[in-house]
Amino acid sequence: MRHENGKIVKFGIIKKDSQSSARLGMLNTAHGPVQTPVFMPVGTAGAVKGITPQHLNETGAVIILANTYHLLLRPGVDCVERLGGLHKLMAWDKPILTDSGGYQVFSLSSLAKINDDHVEFGSHIDGAKIKLSPETATQIQNRLGADIIMCLDQCTPFPCDEPQLKTAVERTINWAKRCKQTHTNANQMLFGIVQGGINHELRTSCAGELMKLDFDGYALGGLGVGEGHDNMITTVAHTNQLLPQDKPRYLMGVGTPADIIAAVKAGVDMFDCVLPTRNGRNAYAFTQNGPLRLRNSTHTCDINPIEQDCDCYCCRNFGRGSLRHFFNINEMLGPILVSLHNIRFYQRLMAKIRQMLEKNEFADWAQENLKRYTDYFSG
Amino acid sequence: MRHENGKIVKFGIIKKDSQSSARLGMLNTAHGPVQTPVFMPVGTAGAVKGITPQHLNETGAVIILANTYHLLLRPGVDCVERLGGLHKLMAWDKPILTDSGGYQVFSLSSLAKINDDHVEFGSHIDGAKIKLSPETATQIQNRLGADIIMCLDQCTPFPCDEPQLKTAVERTINWAKRCKQTHTNANQMLFGIVQGGINHELRTSCAGELMKLDFDGYALGGLGVGEGHDNMITTVAHTNQLLPQDKPRYLMGVGTPADIIAAVKAGVDMFDCVLPTRNGRNAYAFTQNGPLRLRNSTHTCDINPIEQDCDCYCCRNFGRGSLRHFFNINEMLGPILVSLHNIRFYQRLMAKIRQMLEKNEFADWAQENLKRYTDYFSG
Repeated sequence: MRHENGKIVKFGIIKKDSQSSARLGMLNTAHGPVQTPVFMPVGTAGAVKGITPQHLNETGAVIILANTYHLLLRPGVDCVERLGGLHKLMAWDKPILTDSGGYQVFSLSSLAKINDDHVEFGSHIDGAKIKLSPETATQIQNRLGADIIMCLDQCTPFPCDEPQLKTAVERTINWAKRCKQTHTNANQMLFGIVQGGINHELRTSCAGELMKLDFDGYALGGLGVGEGHDNMITTVAHTNQLLPQDKPRYLMGVGTPADIIAAVKAGVDMFDCVLPTRNGRNAYAFTQNGPLRLRNSTHTCDINPIEQDCDCYCCRNFGRGSLRHFFNINEMLGPILVSLHNIRFYQRLMAKIRQMLEKNEFADWAQENLKRYTDYFSG
Repeated sequence: MRHENGKIVKFGIIKKDSQSSARLGMLNTAHGPVQTPVFMPVGTAGAVKGITPQHLNETGAVIILANTYHLLLRPGVDCVERLGGLHKLMAWDKPILTDSGGYQVFSLSSLAKINDDHVEFGSHIDGAKIKLSPETATQIQNRLGADIIMCLDQCTPFPCDEPQLKTAVERTINWAKRCKQTHTNANQMLFGIVQGGINHELRTSCAGELMKLDFDGYALGGLGVGEGHDNMITTVAHTNQLLPQDKPRYLMGVGTPADIIAAVKAGVDMFDCVLPTRNGRNAYAFTQNGPLRLRNSTHTCDINPIEQDCDCYCCRNFGRGSLRHFFNINEMLGPILVSLHNIRFYQRLMAKIRQMLEKNEFADWAQENLKRYTDYFSG
């Protein structure tokens, strides 16, 4: 942790790119430092699916994300607390970020009813009625004990008409105030979430209001929901120029390698996405030369690793033929090993981005790779 | 490898127990030495389900088993060969034993038709007709490349009438001759399999005929199929006193901790069984104080590891509450971690047996623990 006048600096910029809004930074959490730009693998309900913390650690992942919504339903907050908190539950002693549950309430649960006070929804598991307010969402996250927690926000779908978008932004701002007031755990950073769809005016007003509340960081929510890469990046760039330089910026739920490169260029510091793990479970491997679909019969007798120069556990030990065989017989090692490779692919991508920023070579690298990865992984 | 008069000693007895038929030994394979008595985790189709070789290695497992029947169906022998052999497929550079496929033909496939020449059966996957003869079973295993391979035998169910048992024994002996004649890979040991159900006379004649063929080791097949612990151990003891002292003895597919202790006492050196992994996948954990069923709600908020003094990866990192949660949400880490613990439990059991033999304390220890484990894990 770096200190300034005796005060812990939660986030510091190490270097700014001269040709873009990209920044190299350092986030100091209660469970250790995080170099940014950073990618957080998703450990939805307390586990990055199929990946032991030992293997996860070896991918270079430092901070991981868990979903408040899932943990609230199972095993429940009381249980997590009695088990010693989220870090103990997951056996992960490095930083964790929890989302607020807002996104999942709208995407997973049935019959979500929202008013200015709270959202009420049916569990996607058993339909049980659950209420989440800015206060309870914050208290729950205080108790789960992640290093970074998120305000409860109202997510909007894409497309979304302006009145609905406006109501969601107003509610998100009000709720952010209530979250900030409720937040008591000094070991946790609290991030505000900017909403407003791809409406720049609404993003401006939302960012402005949240900044008055002085959050530890700012997230960009409601993106990567169907608006497309260009709309997303334009909105990100617009919003980031409004946000304070000295606070981390987190683009939630994004994205493909090209999305990440473009968003870093536009000034984003943090990312999370299910792509490496979800695709990994479906035999889809990311490589620097495009995707490999490992169920494809062309891999049957292929002794080559997924990527020749990859240093992940999977590539150091298994050929494509073995992996195809594992998927073919529904052996867990298939999903496990390809998820591991994909997480390592994302971690190597972020390490490369940080290295390029360090060496002042990011702009050229980004231009070249943005194009390449857009062609490869257009979604 | 130990040498005697310039010849590699494939198996050596280090110490014989003075109060029982138990032996402490060393098996020298092409992929390294194996201390016996040894337990081999089962990697059916080229993977110990859900367990990376890195984690498997950390359990202390040295030699693992793979099933010829499964590998023959998928990915096929040509494919395994083109992938560089079974060790490469599995990313396991320590010893491997393959069974001959005989047992699975009778237990898994439909419409198995047997005659003196071969067995023909329908694949349990797509019904495809496949022929397996002593010659092809041996050639297939030669090509798979395991360190120890098994003769094709005819397994009998329990109970089984004497004429059927007798035919099976005769066929097993004839087939063993043909396997021995066919076997060409000098890097592989070939084991004969003694059949005969719980009929001591048939076991005697089968063992006698096989011994004339001078195999690298002798397996006891057709046990642990419903005859019960006492019948099994009586048959094992009877057969072992006939088998040569200087060759390893392998009790196939067995068993519970009590089965293993009793069989070691009766002179068995090698074991394999799906219990630790299959039970692990079903949330059943072996402990020195009896089984834990981790789906049980009593574990919900329990921060204790499965076993307090266990040094496995699971117990060093996860509490019972986390494990129960993983099973509850169908997270792969549940099956993975409890399988890992159970494999380590079996490896520690074998290490303890070897230690007790080394210290001349096996007999007392066996008596005490045989009783205890019989009470705990009666099946």
